[in-house]
Amino acid sequence: MKGLFITFEGPDGSGKTTQLQLLANYLREQGYDVVTTREPGGTHISDQIRKILLDPNHLELKNQTEILLYAASRAQLVHELIIPALEQGKIVLCDRYIDASIAYQSYGLGIDKEIVEEINRFASSQLQPNRTYLLYISPELGRERMIKRNNREFDSDLDRIEQKDIEYHERVYQGFSVLAEEYPNRILKIDANKSIEMIFEVIKKDFEKFLNMNWKEG
Amino acid sequence: MKGLFITFEGPDGSGKTTQLQLLANYLREQGYDVVTTREPGGTHISDQIRKILLDPNHLELKNQTEILLYAASRAQLVHELIIPALEQGKIVLCDRYIDASIAYQSYGLGIDKEIVEEINRFASSQLQPNRTYLLYISPELGRERMIKRNNREFDSDLDRIEQKDIEYHERVYQGFSVLAEEYPNRILKIDANKSIEMIFEVIKKDFEKFLNMNWKEG
Repeated sequence: MKGLFITFEGPDGSGKTTQLQLLANYLREQGYDVVTTREPGGTHISDQIRKILLDPNHLELKNQTEILLYAASRAQLVHELIIPALEQGKIVLCDRYIDASIAYQSYGLGIDKEIVEEINRFASSQLQPNRTYLLYISPELGRERMIKRNNREFDSDLDRIEQKDIEYHERVYQGFSVLAEEYPNRILKIDANKSIEMIFEVIKKDFEKFLNMNWKEG
Repeated sequence: MKGLFITFEGPDGSGKTTQLQLLANYLREQGYDVVTTREPGGTHISDQIRKILLDPNHLELKNQTEILLYAASRAQLVHELIIPALEQGKIVLCDRYIDASIAYQSYGLGIDKEIVEEINRFASSQLQPNRTYLLYISPELGRERMIKRNNREFDSDLDRIEQKDIEYHERVYQGFSVLAEEYPNRILKIDANKSIEMIFEVIKKDFEKFLNMNWKEG
């Protein structure tokens, strides 16, 4: 495929969505054809799946259901939007991808990693990102930022995933850490305690280097 | 588990829903504790997934998404409703189950059978039916019955699955046939061209024999 597929990962409140937008704006200014999207969601069908997944009332949602719904949302996004954009030579920036399923569903929920990987290989037709920016922040600080950012005073204002206990978010954090060690060539781990500007400088420099080494537009 | 899990399978228009209701009524009259349900659906969350799957406007739905959504709906139904009912010693009658995914998604859509089975083993925590009634009818006759039954004059009144071409429904039909050969001890294949009464006689006799051989209530 002619395009480039870049993902942004990290716990809630790590600032990945901000960084994705900054990189998208920067690349568009340079004249690149950029598509931004997010998980779960990103297509009409995936957005309907997103609603089921994040509804704070869906406390009865089972672990197996959660894993399969994330994978279903991903399958639709990959085949309807990401692959066609890559075939057209575009740069696709995606907020969360398979790494998030491994961190949240395998490490967080304690579901066997091999089966989560297998389901996601099927869902994505084995499409892997070319580069992944992992914004790394402690669960405590991430949670603090989330609550501040959304002017939400109480835990009950958080969505179904955000509501889970701190031990769950600690396991997710560990999961991201293991992934960064497993895929050192794909994943760049960035300390998300730094300022937005400092983080973006790291990403911008890395991405320019990556572009020069790996890709010629068109 | 103390209960019994019985599934009804077959193409659309085969009369399986009618037979399920007849068996449920009969067993309730005998004093059994019976739960009836259907796929996709059967729980609040599964019903929301059902809406996405059957919406006739969702022509962009990808094969991978379809398989994962059916499995997600099943995962929720199995863990929220079926397993708890079986643990309470109830008889659960379910309209469609994993055999339908193998027939429609593996044979119908042409997706590798091993991966569809693997995803469904995960979704169902390997819960298999104790007995399956497969109502066997040709795709042409099934389609004719569907259209008549619902007073639907045009193909455009059919749902997303029903709208698919006759070759697809032929492959589904073959798939059910292969399954009946693979699991002769679990699946009873019944000619659905017979009258409702004649079919129910077959099911009733078989089920009573099955009950006597396999199960003591409570």
